[in-house]
Amino acid sequence: MFTRIDHVGIACRDLDATVDFYRRTYGLEPTHIEVNEEQGVREAMLRVNGTDDGGASYVQLLQPVRDDSPVAKFLERNGEGLHHVAFGTPDVADTANTVREQGIRVLSAEPRPGSMGSRISFLHPKDCGGVLTEIVQAPHSDG
Amino acid sequence: MFTRIDHVGIACRDLDATVDFYRRTYGLEPTHIEVNEEQGVREAMLRVNGTDDGGASYVQLLQPVRDDSPVAKFLERNGEGLHHVAFGTPDVADTANTVREQGIRVLSAEPRPGSMGSRISFLHPKDCGGVLTEIVQAPHSDG
Repeated sequence: MFTRIDHVGIACRDLDATVDFYRRTYGLEPTHIEVNEEQGVREAMLRVNGTDDGGASYVQLLQPVRDDSPVAKFLERNGEGLHHVAFGTPDVADTANTVREQGIRVLSAEPRPGSMGSRISFLHPKDCGGVLTEIVQAPHSDG
Repeated sequence: MFTRIDHVGIACRDLDATVDFYRRTYGLEPTHIEVNEEQGVREAMLRVNGTDDGGASYVQLLQPVRDDSPVAKFLERNGEGLHHVAFGTPDVADTANTVREQGIRVLSAEPRPGSMGSRISFLHPKDCGGVLTEIVQAPHSDG
């Protein structure tokens, strides 16, 4: 079902400063920066390693671009820090259906646009031991 | 410096129930369960994928075994959920020194015993954008 840890999502207040921190401190470079209007975030993907399913694992840095975005609300409640974990899967719609059948609430009826052309769904953290869990299908995936 | 996302650490109150959730819901199996007396946790490692540095990425589930352990205090403050992210490195002592020179507080003078024979150090979350960040050297690593 899950073939890789796709990324770890980290909420921050200043994306450029945080990108700079990861570059300066750890040598991690952003491979992609984009705005996801639907999620209300500007985000940077920092590739850490390749994975044996042909994909890769990233650090994803997230800055809210509007006050009512979920990440803005997270920052208000919790401050900066770990926001979610995302698992790669060959078929996000199929995986969403499978976990839905286990009684997990999936936060959108259909998969939504994610980073770098991916398709994503979020699972309700209250159904996942407090962990906001994302499932990700890479673009051009067979699934 | 970092060659992989080694694991994502998740704090839980009942390790066996949480292992069972990850198995039942996602098909992830524990490859290793151990008690780390120093950290005050019982922990399960669930392998998700192999990584192109010859290692692997895991979900690490953590249950406190004493009330004064850092994970017990985390659960009191935050409830269950994402606790830390760990990056693999060939030489944990060398990486700790490098980040220390960047002004990051390293939470132990020397690396400590981690999961499955690894050596680990934690970096202070207040110096890392709110993220409790672990660095991990696998056993038998050249570094």
